[in-house]
Amino acid sequence: MRRVVLLTDFGTADGYAAAMAGVIAAAAPDASIEHAAHDVAPGDILGAAIALQRYATRYPRGTVHLVVVDPGVGTARRPLAVTADGRHYVAPDNGVLTLVLRHAGRVDAVAVRDVGRGGGAAPTFHGRDIFAPAAAALARGQSLSTLGPPVDDPVRLAVPEPVRTDGAVRGEVIHVDRFGTLISNVPAAWVRGLGDGARVSIEGASIGPLRRTYGDVASGSLLALIGSLDLLEISVRDGRAADRLGLGRGAAIEVASAG
Amino acid sequence: MRRVVLLTDFGTADGYAAAMAGVIAAAAPDASIEHAAHDVAPGDILGAAIALQRYATRYPRGTVHLVVVDPGVGTARRPLAVTADGRHYVAPDNGVLTLVLRHAGRVDAVAVRDVGRGGGAAPTFHGRDIFAPAAAALARGQSLSTLGPPVDDPVRLAVPEPVRTDGAVRGEVIHVDRFGTLISNVPAAWVRGLGDGARVSIEGASIGPLRRTYGDVASGSLLALIGSLDLLEISVRDGRAADRLGLGRGAAIEVASAG
Amino acid sequence: MRRVVLLTDFGTADGYAAAMAGVIAAAAPDASIEHAAHDVAPGDILGAAIALQRYATRYPRGTVHLVVVDPGVGTARRPLAVTADGRHYVAPDNGVLTLVLRHAGRVDAVAVRDVGRGGGAAPTFHGRDIFAPAAAALARGQSLSTLGPPVDDPVRLAVPEPVRTDGAVRGEVIHVDRFGTLISNVPAAWVRGLGDGARVSIEGASIGPLRRTYGDVASGSLLALIGSLDLLEISVRDGRAADRLGLGRGAAIEVASAG
Repeated sequence: MRRVVLLTDFGTADGYAAAMAGVIAAAAPDASIEHAAHDVAPGDILGAAIALQRYATRYPRGTVHLVVVDPGVGTARRPLAVTADGRHYVAPDNGVLTLVLRHAGRVDAVAVRDVGRGGGAAPTFHGRDIFAPAAAALARGQSLSTLGPPVDDPVRLAVPEPVRTDGAVRGEVIHVDRFGTLISNVPAAWVRGLGDGARVSIEGASIGPLRRTYGDVASGSLLALIGSLDLLEISVRDGRAADRLGLGRGAAIEVASAG
Repeated sequence: MRRVVLLTDFGTADGYAAAMAGVIAAAAPDASIEHAAHDVAPGDILGAAIALQRYATRYPRGTVHLVVVDPGVGTARRPLAVTADGRHYVAPDNGVLTLVLRHAGRVDAVAVRDVGRGGGAAPTFHGRDIFAPAAAALARGQSLSTLGPPVDDPVRLAVPEPVRTDGAVRGEVIHVDRFGTLISNVPAAWVRGLGDGARVSIEGASIGPLRRTYGDVASGSLLALIGSLDLLEISVRDGRAADRLGLGRGAAIEVASAG
Repeated sequence: MRRVVLLTDFGTADGYAAAMAGVIAAAAPDASIEHAAHDVAPGDILGAAIALQRYATRYPRGTVHLVVVDPGVGTARRPLAVTADGRHYVAPDNGVLTLVLRHAGRVDAVAVRDVGRGGGAAPTFHGRDIFAPAAAALARGQSLSTLGPPVDDPVRLAVPEPVRTDGAVRGEVIHVDRFGTLISNVPAAWVRGLGDGARVSIEGASIGPLRRTYGDVASGSLLALIGSLDLLEISVRDGRAADRLGLGRGAAIEVASAG
């Protein structure tokens, strides 16, 4: 069974995501349509890139990932179709695929031709008129190269990068999740490289040592831990760190060794 | 594969939609159950009608659309099952099908008999006890006429209609979507009929000429454009027009020719 | 078709639920993955238990219900897999299965071994690394006993119980749903046992007699009725009782006979 998995910022009140699903159901009747998430914050390309990274490669090869967070809809930004490590991605060329492509092996990309409704895609809804038909074509087994000409320079998001100095790592918050957890760009390996006594701070306020899981502190306490993306996170057990600290994307995080 | 597509105002916290899905899964094991949207505002029949219009006919013939936005549950309002242009609809007879039936060709409708649990449908949850079993029956291929007696007067919503005068079109906002976009009842063809110099205003405030897409104005600017339902809309690029203007459903929109 | 039905508090913005779905899709390619609800309030075990009760047994035998509301993730709380009346349940052993197991006939339970990624489950995301693989195994037809050693003492939630005295029933609100309805723990049969003239009150304020459905009172009026879980509920027709009364979980409800 070929699966098409949708990720958008369309919400779940208006039927926009369902319009895309209907197009896919009509064009690829045997496809299984799954909804990953539709509550990405409107226009939040980095948030969508992080969500996609969380699940894309958990799905088996052959899966078609359709991602429509597209503030530039109707402008000259290209519609992309990509095959990477046996999985397909259809998305606007605005950087939303940056994180999944960063660690991919072989990547092939094309700029999708507007073939929807005789080339007359609605200028505000390429998700329905360009991206969904392209995803359906891939779900039917059509080859990537039939969708449009090759592209060798997909747009890459300027994701903030952490820095390492002697005995310390500095990064920043790149996402706040549903639980109010502050997710940083600091990789687990860098934190662990600083040794057991390392201390974590955010915007100068001490959070303490790295913990393993929420249950390691009392309910209501702040803690630092390695999240499921293998990145350093700041949480409150049974609470919301973003609200407690009044911090969000861009907040500076530092980990310093005991030495 | 027969698809049953659900649209409700049940939200996604309580398991109400899942109760309907479970009934369908038990009664029509081969059906594919899809969720179009469950965050229609509670009791908002017009909002549901607009959402349904957005996707219903994108799905292939044979699809069963199950719509439960039902503030009159348990009263004498009839449960409807309808076949229109080869697609099936199951919904309360409260006007929620008005927009999809408006442009349909052949329409057959019946009043669904209460056959759930020996005729003992819960008076607050016909979605589970009447509508879902009827949708499952249609998904199994049972004919419409077996579900109940014919109905030739389904309730129609009194959807506000736009008016056309010499050189101007007047309408109103009928929906605010997830992005804060103000969607009017003014059809694209009427706007285009006024020529290139036409100007759009809402509640007397000028919005300017018709634009093609968001990228045609600066980030944060108001604009008027034709949305994916082929209706006139007022948006803010990368923002929310409803919040910016403090306007919502019922706000008066006018388009006047340059002459 | 074997169905795996997901219930979590993960929301629909971050891709957490999709990560679980991807793991299941990879490990049980023929399974149909359905999303019951992901907007359970963060960490609300009782809310999840009530949602699950609403739909679990509506699904056919053979369905795998995967429930991840897991504030104790990474601690010593056990991961459970349960078979009850032919349906499977995979969930943390924190009481979230209490209500579905209360009325079940035969119940078999095991403590799921950590076999995900070589025993290295992420200490903050057992949903992905332990529960989803276990659900996939059951969906593939693997027997419960292969997942881990038997458990005969699953954790039970201390759900508040109603009390009956001569001519009166006292209970409390155990859940507020999407519509602001106050759902109590008072069973329908107890209310009906008090006769037709019985009066309902909440925190001392009179609500009036038991009604059959919303349409029995004027729009905007408070009413008491039996909800779809066969429990006493307090609602406002076309409104929100929880907001109107400023009450929520724990509010005291009384039904007194006319006598």
